[in-house]
Amino acid sequence: MQSHNWVIDFHFRHESRASMYRVQRTVAHASTDYQEVLIVDLADLGRALMLDGSMQSSALDEHIYHEALVHPAMIASPSPKKVFVAGGGEGATLREILKHNTVEQVTMVDIDSALVELARQYLGEWHQGAFDDPRVKLLHQDARAYLENCPDKFDCIISDVVEPTGDSPAALLFTQEFFQIVRSKLNPGGALALQAEAADVSDYEAHVSIVKTLQACFNSVRSYQVQVACFSATWGFAVASDSPLDQRLNPQTIPQVLSERNCANLRFYDAESHLHMFSLPKYLRDALQNPNAGMIIRDEHLLVVD
Amino acid sequence: MQSHNWVIDFHFRHESRASMYRVQRTVAHASTDYQEVLIVDLADLGRALMLDGSMQSSALDEHIYHEALVHPAMIASPSPKKVFVAGGGEGATLREILKHNTVEQVTMVDIDSALVELARQYLGEWHQGAFDDPRVKLLHQDARAYLENCPDKFDCIISDVVEPTGDSPAALLFTQEFFQIVRSKLNPGGALALQAEAADVSDYEAHVSIVKTLQACFNSVRSYQVQVACFSATWGFAVASDSPLDQRLNPQTIPQVLSERNCANLRFYDAESHLHMFSLPKYLRDALQNPNAGMIIRDEHLLVVD
Amino acid sequence: MQSHNWVIDFHFRHESRASMYRVQRTVAHASTDYQEVLIVDLADLGRALMLDGSMQSSALDEHIYHEALVHPAMIASPSPKKVFVAGGGEGATLREILKHNTVEQVTMVDIDSALVELARQYLGEWHQGAFDDPRVKLLHQDARAYLENCPDKFDCIISDVVEPTGDSPAALLFTQEFFQIVRSKLNPGGALALQAEAADVSDYEAHVSIVKTLQACFNSVRSYQVQVACFSATWGFAVASDSPLDQRLNPQTIPQVLSERNCANLRFYDAESHLHMFSLPKYLRDALQNPNAGMIIRDEHLLVVD
Amino acid sequence: MQSHNWVIDFHFRHESRASMYRVQRTVAHASTDYQEVLIVDLADLGRALMLDGSMQSSALDEHIYHEALVHPAMIASPSPKKVFVAGGGEGATLREILKHNTVEQVTMVDIDSALVELARQYLGEWHQGAFDDPRVKLLHQDARAYLENCPDKFDCIISDVVEPTGDSPAALLFTQEFFQIVRSKLNPGGALALQAEAADVSDYEAHVSIVKTLQACFNSVRSYQVQVACFSATWGFAVASDSPLDQRLNPQTIPQVLSERNCANLRFYDAESHLHMFSLPKYLRDALQNPNAGMIIRDEHLLVVD
Repeated sequence: MQSHNWVIDFHFRHESRASMYRVQRTVAHASTDYQEVLIVDLADLGRALMLDGSMQSSALDEHIYHEALVHPAMIASPSPKKVFVAGGGEGATLREILKHNTVEQVTMVDIDSALVELARQYLGEWHQGAFDDPRVKLLHQDARAYLENCPDKFDCIISDVVEPTGDSPAALLFTQEFFQIVRSKLNPGGALALQAEAADVSDYEAHVSIVKTLQACFNSVRSYQVQVACFSATWGFAVASDSPLDQRLNPQTIPQVLSERNCANLRFYDAESHLHMFSLPKYLRDALQNPNAGMIIRDEHLLVVD
Repeated sequence: MQSHNWVIDFHFRHESRASMYRVQRTVAHASTDYQEVLIVDLADLGRALMLDGSMQSSALDEHIYHEALVHPAMIASPSPKKVFVAGGGEGATLREILKHNTVEQVTMVDIDSALVELARQYLGEWHQGAFDDPRVKLLHQDARAYLENCPDKFDCIISDVVEPTGDSPAALLFTQEFFQIVRSKLNPGGALALQAEAADVSDYEAHVSIVKTLQACFNSVRSYQVQVACFSATWGFAVASDSPLDQRLNPQTIPQVLSERNCANLRFYDAESHLHMFSLPKYLRDALQNPNAGMIIRDEHLLVVD
Repeated sequence: MQSHNWVIDFHFRHESRASMYRVQRTVAHASTDYQEVLIVDLADLGRALMLDGSMQSSALDEHIYHEALVHPAMIASPSPKKVFVAGGGEGATLREILKHNTVEQVTMVDIDSALVELARQYLGEWHQGAFDDPRVKLLHQDARAYLENCPDKFDCIISDVVEPTGDSPAALLFTQEFFQIVRSKLNPGGALALQAEAADVSDYEAHVSIVKTLQACFNSVRSYQVQVACFSATWGFAVASDSPLDQRLNPQTIPQVLSERNCANLRFYDAESHLHMFSLPKYLRDALQNPNAGMIIRDEHLLVVD
Repeated sequence: MQSHNWVIDFHFRHESRASMYRVQRTVAHASTDYQEVLIVDLADLGRALMLDGSMQSSALDEHIYHEALVHPAMIASPSPKKVFVAGGGEGATLREILKHNTVEQVTMVDIDSALVELARQYLGEWHQGAFDDPRVKLLHQDARAYLENCPDKFDCIISDVVEPTGDSPAALLFTQEFFQIVRSKLNPGGALALQAEAADVSDYEAHVSIVKTLQACFNSVRSYQVQVACFSATWGFAVASDSPLDQRLNPQTIPQVLSERNCANLRFYDAESHLHMFSLPKYLRDALQNPNAGMIIRDEHLLVVD
């Protein structure tokens, strides 16, 4: 059966490009309090999650996205016991964090309980039961408000939230004010990692702004990127800490740390993939070093991704 | 003016995905003896060349594609004086080769003279006058037949041809038989580089086959890849030689070689971009090392890319 | 919720046009033994049935299609008691036939039982319980073979089958041989009606061939057409009989016949809608009168609609 | 050559449907002071004009649209000598008017001179030299202001303007105030005709409002409609006069009037096509008779077509 059902992701600046995906099966299509959720089985990417028409992850390569997001920051944290996750509704960020045998508790705060319910039901390949791990504490409220008021500190904080478009509540999770809250909740040596928008040659302004905003808050910041096939784009990430990152994020020592953590057999992340992600293409290095590129994102001066 | 004109590239396996690009202006739309040529100004990629509905290169990032294709092989060749190009109709491959101050003669053979005429006229940003460089000898005929019968040898050979789909004449430029011809036309220490199909996590089979076919012909082969924004994909390349490549393609020594060649200020290619391209993501390393992946491509057993 | 899910119907000659419909909800998406069935809730057409990517009917205007298909032939038959339906999987053709208070038995033969099951479950607005009317005899087999071997005769025969594309079993329900079978199974004064392909100014060749093939079999044939919004086209129908049609299909007398049949309050069909459908635009009259237009469709010389 | 270039017309309510057309050749793509003009050669409709992404007319069926627009009002006017055209940039409305041998002068006012220039150059099949007919007076200014201030009266007025979307100057050519101006500029017995928006079962609200607004101004108003293939829709028109229309728009007498006017051999319009257009489908009759449907359009209360 050649399906005639498609999803179309109008994306990129000024809606000037779109990606069309042939849908084999519509698994779920719901409207939660926060977003349109579409879970589909695509002809070449397998099962995929789209939020408000924007691809979030696909069975084919969600492991690349989630391993890239989680492991550098976990490696950068000397012995991460307590971890905080903002967003992460699919449960795959949890899954990767829990692989580190140092982890004792993960607090995940995703505002959209209906999304998490759909993920539980239909994205088993993503969470692989992580929501039910006894180390996990799952809450549905505003992640920033929770973190601000929470008495605890964490060894590692992962922000896995949607793009800060329009009036998304995610917009306030990319500001200097939010990063200062994060910093105040990190234990010494702790690291933050976040999805940090496209780092594509056609579209890297938001990424540069995020990195510069982090640099205004943390002593050590590293930008990195990886091709995410289901985004049809190079995606940017950043890891930030007040402790020097270069020493711990050393391709020479990564294999041993992964081995100690019982993470030697990840599907994507290893020393060479690390080198691939952290060796930046020249346009991105140039932009990150250009004092006129990007802006400091503030609560009063939000990033706008269109 | 928000244009309502689009090009749609139905691509990927089984026509299960497509990319839509908003067209600001249709610059040329012609049918040559070999292909549909569409030159358009796109809203976010700028001018772009599409052949038979498949994106070839865009103003935004053609420099990444062409620098990635040309410079590793040129660096791998000790002192490239005579260079051969198969295909390369836009003239940008020529442009990059000519930057190396060692070059004395480039023979370019592209079967489609009408395409080259359109490129001359409308893709000035690509060729930048390279077709008129006195070191260039431009011919319009079958590149394989020419190379086979040509009495000369070359220090570097670059194959920049379209995807070997359907009954494209390009299909015979990816076979073991063709690579043997290339090998016989390389001077000692010479290297071949070619565009080697997608190296995307969703689609890397053709790349693996090309690399394995090269390995059946040459002593030293390196696969590398880079994100090409206008392909919405990670693209694979390969460089092959009978001399060991690892020594010359060393990020430590690349800056000096580029400097000696008067190529220190390329837009994309430098030691870190090289490291980015040659550090392969794990899925690709695994596939290249898997004895059951891919096939040896032969004249009688062509690669089929759909 | 602005949905990002679409169905795309690539239609018209040479796949040169397509219609895209925004999907609010995918109700069912299945592959039967015969076709891809997609039942969707569309933003402006409401629920819709697509078979193999081709729109069949929508909640918004299925009543126009089905009333146009059924009532002229029923009116043309003096007192239709026994009626035969080929195809008609949605049950709406049944529904319209059963409105005529003369009807005692309707035999419906649709080859695809899985489609009828989906219609029963999801297209209640179409069948409105017609499948369970005690006057209905529902069979799932080849309609032509059934009719050929059936000992009964009928007062009215309605053919409501998909377009005869590719290797569809519907192809054999548009031939002179099939129409001769139909003719042999009609009681005196009985009439056949069928969906008779597009009658659009951009595409009416198939319609002309169908009408001419009917003219080769029946004494009296009338072509008519109506705009079907969900097809984005003017759709052609034909009614054929060995008795003169003009007298019964007279706008002057139609109101009385409808009233006697207890069909005075149909949603679409009445004397003026009849006049609208049977007054043909000039291009269609010209083509129907042109001896060189169209062809006689035979089992050995099938209609090809692409 | 199978082209990969498309135009996409996102249309219908809430952008919930779109039509895609394969482009063989982009003839002109320009931005005038008023609109995006795109003239393309389409695979099945032939040359076509799109304004702001919305199909205006195609070579295949522009004669249906323009004959339907012009001839009923010309027939309704006893002996039309002086005619006024608002809009009509393609020149085809002129062409049809000039066929009536009674015509002595046509004043055409289209605000967009650049569009008319493009039509002159590329839409020869439309205007067929009509712009150069000595009876034609062509002006580029606001049609309403011109008409209001013009000392002349006319026997027939044709309004052939784009849809009144957004801030289009066309919006003020569909109001009661404009129709009162028109009425004051018509000679006794004179008639107005206009394109009056979609009359499709999925979308007829605007048409009903236009007809009701005309009824608030003129003694006699007739709605009619025809399938316009390149709109993928049934299109509505209206003719209005202070003299009774039914007598002149009588299918019995139309052949003679056409013959006297030397218009007996039009491509589309004749008595039967007239009957087809003026016999309305029931949904439209019901809506036009429903006192709660539609609204009176005023300068302060414009029609909004999205």
